Amino acid sequence: MRYPFADRVKKFKSSAVRDILSVIQKGDVISFAGGMPFEDFFPNEAVERAFSKVFQSGKSSMQYGLTEGFMPLRELLSDQLKQQSMRFDAENILLTTGSQQAIDLFSRAMLSPGDVVLTEDPTYLAALQVFQSYEAEIIAVESDEDGMDPDDLEQKMRQYRPKFVYIVPTFSNPEGKVWSAERRQLLLNLAQRFNVLIFEDDPYGEIKFDDQKEFTPIAAFDEEGTHVVYTSTISKTVVPALRIGWVAGPYQVIRMMAQVKQCSDLHSSSIDQQALYYLLQDFDLKGHIRMLREEYYKRMVIMQDYLKKIESDSISWIEPQGGMFLWVTLGEQVDTTVLLMDAIKEGVAYVPGAPFYVANPRVNTLRLNFTHATPELIQLGMDRLTTVLNRLQPGNESPPIL
Amino acid sequence: MRYPFADRVKKFKSSAVRDILSVIQKGDVISFAGGMPFEDFFPNEAVERAFSKVFQSGKSSMQYGLTEGFMPLRELLSDQLKQQSMRFDAENILLTTGSQQAIDLFSRAMLSPGDVVLTEDPTYLAALQVFQSYEAEIIAVESDEDGMDPDDLEQKMRQYRPKFVYIVPTFSNPEGKVWSAERRQLLLNLAQRFNVLIFEDDPYGEIKFDDQKEFTPIAAFDEEGTHVVYTSTISKTVVPALRIGWVAGPYQVIRMMAQVKQCSDLHSSSIDQQALYYLLQDFDLKGHIRMLREEYYKRMVIMQDYLKKIESDSISWIEPQGGMFLWVTLGEQVDTTVLLMDAIKEGVAYVPGAPFYVANPRVNTLRLNFTHATPELIQLGMDRLTTVLNRLQPGNESPPIL
Repeated sequence: MRYPFADRVKKFKSSAVRDILSVIQKGDVISFAGGMPFEDFFPNEAVERAFSKVFQSGKSSMQYGLTEGFMPLRELLSDQLKQQSMRFDAENILLTTGSQQAIDLFSRAMLSPGDVVLTEDPTYLAALQVFQSYEAEIIAVESDEDGMDPDDLEQKMRQYRPKFVYIVPTFSNPEGKVWSAERRQLLLNLAQRFNVLIFEDDPYGEIKFDDQKEFTPIAAFDEEGTHVVYTSTISKTVVPALRIGWVAGPYQVIRMMAQVKQCSDLHSSSIDQQALYYLLQDFDLKGHIRMLREEYYKRMVIMQDYLKKIESDSISWIEPQGGMFLWVTLGEQVDTTVLLMDAIKEGVAYVPGAPFYVANPRVNTLRLNFTHATPELIQLGMDRLTTVLNRLQPGNESPPIL
Repeated sequence: MRYPFADRVKKFKSSAVRDILSVIQKGDVISFAGGMPFEDFFPNEAVERAFSKVFQSGKSSMQYGLTEGFMPLRELLSDQLKQQSMRFDAENILLTTGSQQAIDLFSRAMLSPGDVVLTEDPTYLAALQVFQSYEAEIIAVESDEDGMDPDDLEQKMRQYRPKFVYIVPTFSNPEGKVWSAERRQLLLNLAQRFNVLIFEDDPYGEIKFDDQKEFTPIAAFDEEGTHVVYTSTISKTVVPALRIGWVAGPYQVIRMMAQVKQCSDLHSSSIDQQALYYLLQDFDLKGHIRMLREEYYKRMVIMQDYLKKIESDSISWIEPQGGMFLWVTLGEQVDTTVLLMDAIKEGVAYVPGAPFYVANPRVNTLRLNFTHATPELIQLGMDRLTTVLNRLQPGNESPPIL
């Protein structure tokens, strides 16, 4: 039987790169491709104690819960957001199955076919897939190292009247970039002037290498709480398997997203939400995050030191101030998708940069993750990658197509 | 700011009845409105032991998981489905956040605006909301006590060329009805002839009062595994808070639903999926379900005995052979939405039947849940409901509008 799928999913492509990467995860290849945290750092004992508290709290903890999520956790998250100058009450917060679901519910509530979303370029691949699945038109705004270009942004807001602007302003995926405070304020000003919502995706903000630096979320600039919808998650700082994210924003928007979520799955696992609530009460999460920052910083430095030793004038990268990724640009002639086959033969993998682009993919870019492997494996993997990259000497920059 | 929501959510209505029912849950009203299992029956100790096993299994159990779900659980579910003559391999199974998400992912994969879905009438309210949210046209097929009327079904398949037929053939919600084996086979024959998919929603099938009776799922009739997508859940038999459902079907359909799920939330809680896997290995679920059947049967009988004593010729109901609901029809003149205010004043609540209908709502129907309250509370609540219903004597059938 031929199955008559909906128009919205007909554009789904199977990704050749994803297929390759899923295969190599079983072999002897060191992968810098995924976006996973380091498993040995997972606070399993604390998570287990938190679950015990859920079971001790009685059988009603196992019953159906609210679509919006476990209220005490929403209250606790509201307090934490307020400490970061984001004035969201518990009623303005919806608990989701990871922040991916926050992106999806928001898009489903906002996007009709043909609506425009403005994004950075490159940006988070799985967000692009969500916008495409609702048949939105994605328009990339020009950016530099401080964030979106204000002139291009203003011009595109005027021209396209977008439904919203999607950004990852702090340690972006894939670039690991940080927006300046000025650009954050400017984006908010434009959003207010053109009556456009900002969707601020902040999964990595806590993983910053310099404790003294403050990267104020755009939601904190939005004093009236009308123009920014903010999402974050515990997937990077506690454990991914709980799949708990949250999204905070104007009450009307959160209310509509909750109605969409009711259609979607009634509610997320409330056992997990209750466990996270007890965990956040009893566990020194701040201390845990301090440890993560230090350890991930060490790994990033090891990786970057290898890049510094590559014998090429055409390699460049953005030095991360936090997050999980190192974004590397090679010589113009190099296609990192072709080069990937070479790298895998050498026993190392990364993600080619092209799929992260909305328009005009730069095929000579690649993303390296520095949080998932041990320092030893990073060294071994970077040894291998150096071998591959050093082969890209002038006159030798086109690797064989396999 | 006015938020420019998507067309697809503009039809979402806030439900006056839901608002009333959410308020009364805080008061001294006995509610037969929800569809919840009885909390004292939750096997908390077994669930807690299962979670301990997850934590003992090591830190990699806390890492990101597969979109399709925890493979050993899918294999175990495949074995169970095969015992019920449904030949789905693990690759044909996707784990979801409750069976609600299965309905949603399937609809999102299949429905373009204007596509037709055929349903029973009345049927599961939250499924109708999903279909509406994807702007489908819902067409009700005429039914009797054995299932859909074959002539009307054939005529509507021919006329509308639907994308799929949605049914709850075993202890339906809200009617608690069971399709005959003949009608199941007939529906499958028509689906094969017209190349239409059947979405078989089976959350209640395990809760059958007569252990000897077999209600073969339609998916088991579909020997080639091409025309039926089948979903079930542990929410009614183990605990709802885990939010674990599964959906099984033709590989191409499940593959597409997994791609949709990747957009939706990457994956559901894999801690919970692993816990369910250990639970199903160690816990006597069959014995547990036998206990539930007996206990829920007792409650149903208590509730029905009250209905039998109502002094009215115009009351009728379907005697449930399982499931969670008693569907009651009152005299033609009664509007159960109006009557609900009267009932709440008396200290008892139910769900009016009208919202469950696609076309021509029968306003004189109501749904009673018999699984959530203790036998004592069922008696007290039914005492109160009897008082309200006995007031509906001839010449007295229009309750005051409040």
